[in-house]
Amino acid sequence: MLDINQFDQINPPARLLMGPGPINADPRVLRAMAAQLVGQYDPSMTGYMNEVMALYRALFRTANRWTMLVDGTSRAGIEAILVSAIRPGDRVLVPVFGRFGHLLCEIARRCRAEVHSIEVPWGQVFEPQAIEDAIKRVKPRLLLTVQGDTSTGQLQPLAELGEICRRHDVLFYTDATASFGGNALETDAWGLDAVSAGLQKCLGGPSGSAPITLSEKLEAVIRRRQHVEEGIRTEAHQDGEDERIASNYFDLGMVMDYWGPERLNHHTEATSMLFAARECARLILQEGLDNTIARHALHGAALLRGVQGLGLDTFGDPDHKMNNVLCVRIPEGIPGEPVRGLLLNDFGIEIGTSFGPLQGKIWRIGTMGYNARKDCVLQTLTALEAVLRRLGFRAPEGGGAQAAWDYYDQQAADAS
Amino acid sequence: MLDINQFDQINPPARLLMGPGPINADPRVLRAMAAQLVGQYDPSMTGYMNEVMALYRALFRTANRWTMLVDGTSRAGIEAILVSAIRPGDRVLVPVFGRFGHLLCEIARRCRAEVHSIEVPWGQVFEPQAIEDAIKRVKPRLLLTVQGDTSTGQLQPLAELGEICRRHDVLFYTDATASFGGNALETDAWGLDAVSAGLQKCLGGPSGSAPITLSEKLEAVIRRRQHVEEGIRTEAHQDGEDERIASNYFDLGMVMDYWGPERLNHHTEATSMLFAARECARLILQEGLDNTIARHALHGAALLRGVQGLGLDTFGDPDHKMNNVLCVRIPEGIPGEPVRGLLLNDFGIEIGTSFGPLQGKIWRIGTMGYNARKDCVLQTLTALEAVLRRLGFRAPEGGGAQAAWDYYDQQAADAS
Repeated sequence: MLDINQFDQINPPARLLMGPGPINADPRVLRAMAAQLVGQYDPSMTGYMNEVMALYRALFRTANRWTMLVDGTSRAGIEAILVSAIRPGDRVLVPVFGRFGHLLCEIARRCRAEVHSIEVPWGQVFEPQAIEDAIKRVKPRLLLTVQGDTSTGQLQPLAELGEICRRHDVLFYTDATASFGGNALETDAWGLDAVSAGLQKCLGGPSGSAPITLSEKLEAVIRRRQHVEEGIRTEAHQDGEDERIASNYFDLGMVMDYWGPERLNHHTEATSMLFAARECARLILQEGLDNTIARHALHGAALLRGVQGLGLDTFGDPDHKMNNVLCVRIPEGIPGEPVRGLLLNDFGIEIGTSFGPLQGKIWRIGTMGYNARKDCVLQTLTALEAVLRRLGFRAPEGGGAQAAWDYYDQQAADAS
Repeated sequence: MLDINQFDQINPPARLLMGPGPINADPRVLRAMAAQLVGQYDPSMTGYMNEVMALYRALFRTANRWTMLVDGTSRAGIEAILVSAIRPGDRVLVPVFGRFGHLLCEIARRCRAEVHSIEVPWGQVFEPQAIEDAIKRVKPRLLLTVQGDTSTGQLQPLAELGEICRRHDVLFYTDATASFGGNALETDAWGLDAVSAGLQKCLGGPSGSAPITLSEKLEAVIRRRQHVEEGIRTEAHQDGEDERIASNYFDLGMVMDYWGPERLNHHTEATSMLFAARECARLILQEGLDNTIARHALHGAALLRGVQGLGLDTFGDPDHKMNNVLCVRIPEGIPGEPVRGLLLNDFGIEIGTSFGPLQGKIWRIGTMGYNARKDCVLQTLTALEAVLRRLGFRAPEGGGAQAAWDYYDQQAADAS
């Protein structure tokens, strides 16, 4: 028998979240979520939905009409695009450079795609030529890419891939969950047909809402699979010629009809998460998207200097490092998990562990969203130095924070 | 070019949401959502996840281990259960008595089920015998039911169906989205193998999180479709013998592994929505679930008396009315939408329109969750009376609120 008096109100411990995400939400985003609800067809609600579309068009740097939210975590955004775009039997090509490339393969297989992948060792990214060669060989209908893979901290250059896809008549998707808002992403200029993201990384919000954008070309692909459900369909509604999408919740044709002027009932929009998504975008656009990206670059570089100042090595190709995630090699003789444990329990600071081939070999430290700040970087470095010393690693005294601090001062001097 | 200064902070108009849901969230739930985030494997976070499981076991009246949240709206909870339980080609039986029965058929078809349905006219429910007859004829693997269908305000009795399903070796699911917390639901006593719900109806929270519970029998069905994704799988992980689930996001085997002791990474739990879900359950269990259901019955009955006092007819079988939704026939000569418009714009009160065969024929008025309160009922009735009078309907003067008030007084007298 459950004793309800054992359950107090929500009161999480204070944490500075410096892992690969989720990170601390901007307090203004949390306050936006505390707003009272309105009905799903209230003019104020549909007004907010339209504003969300406009705000995310600016963030995605696109004119795409269909720029909206999928109600679920970033993985829901990925699956909604894949299951809506991929017809069973379609060939897809996935360049895999970390865990989230494997995830795209996994989801595509569940969409009954014929999945072809190419791989580079973890810590590297692909040359455009390698991707074009694979496209020529595989002749896929879709190219599925990850922009920033937090498992390796690497950022795949995408700028040249759209032109390659256009030449070979391939639909071009990227999962920008971990990179969006902290690294450049130009949906239209780079020729992307679909992008999905999440709030819990550089956007400074909680997990649970997935902004997406779809090109006209992808819209047409989805419309050919159109199906309006019984109970709300009328004689004016006709089914498309291609096979129906194998999900109702993720049927982006239905999601478009809900976000579009017909406002055809589908799910009940997750209002509080929409409020959060709107505030995340609004705050970045107030700062200026280029400024937000530059802020991520600054604090990511300062963290790198600090980690190097501690005498630690980093992992991965430094030329293709994400601004917002740094992979740090666990030094020989130092146990990785106890370092994370002392940081969390005695300093309230969380850094990330790692997956698959890198398990036990690296830590992952994030500087993103609300936590892409000088105080977060300096606190993390001083705490990490103290913990390493406590466990017997001889770091140059004060080397971490001082090196980062020097970098900040130098950048400020250069800018003035 | 978007001018960000045009976008102010979230500031929705004050609304009293008396439709079929979503309704106003309990302010304590909104405050819970404003709590700062913690990491997804932080001991406090996994502790909250375990607490959510315990709290929802009490709400679902079940000992089921796998009682947890799907990160999406209530429709996501439905689809997660259906796509995980239904193998392509499986026969399912759906008794349809409103729009949401059609939705179950629709989702089941997308899971490539062989879908059989039986129907009663909107406004009625099924006798258990009719369902057993259909089970004998169809021999389904699953029976998919809706407990409360807001499109008709009807509540399907489920208590006898579990025994029928057991006799015929049928898995028994119900969609309790609209009824859960406001009407009795006994998962174990009624022999349910799976139930899904949402926060935005009687639980008094926002849309965006779907509590579900799964029996051991259903767990075994799902485990036979087990698949651990590459990037996190180890040699200890083996695939099941049945066809892999056609969704990654909704693969409840993976969701169990994330909520279970292995804590295998899947999605990043939507922390703020989990905080909301926990607070919704905690508040109901503080009140006492039976008391919460009785409160819904009281205010639903008072609204009914008030509507009758206004000289309006109701729709549907009164013996099977949901406690929390009342379908009111739009009186002849009175235009339905202008009534809703005046209520919303001049009184800030929202009542619901309707779907399909009932479109333009009924309004739907809800009394649920935080809004299952005397003041909400009386305000709605006085406003409705004023609006009807303004549009030329001759209601007995003061008849609505007075009749409801009399009912409240009588109930209070009877109780004392």
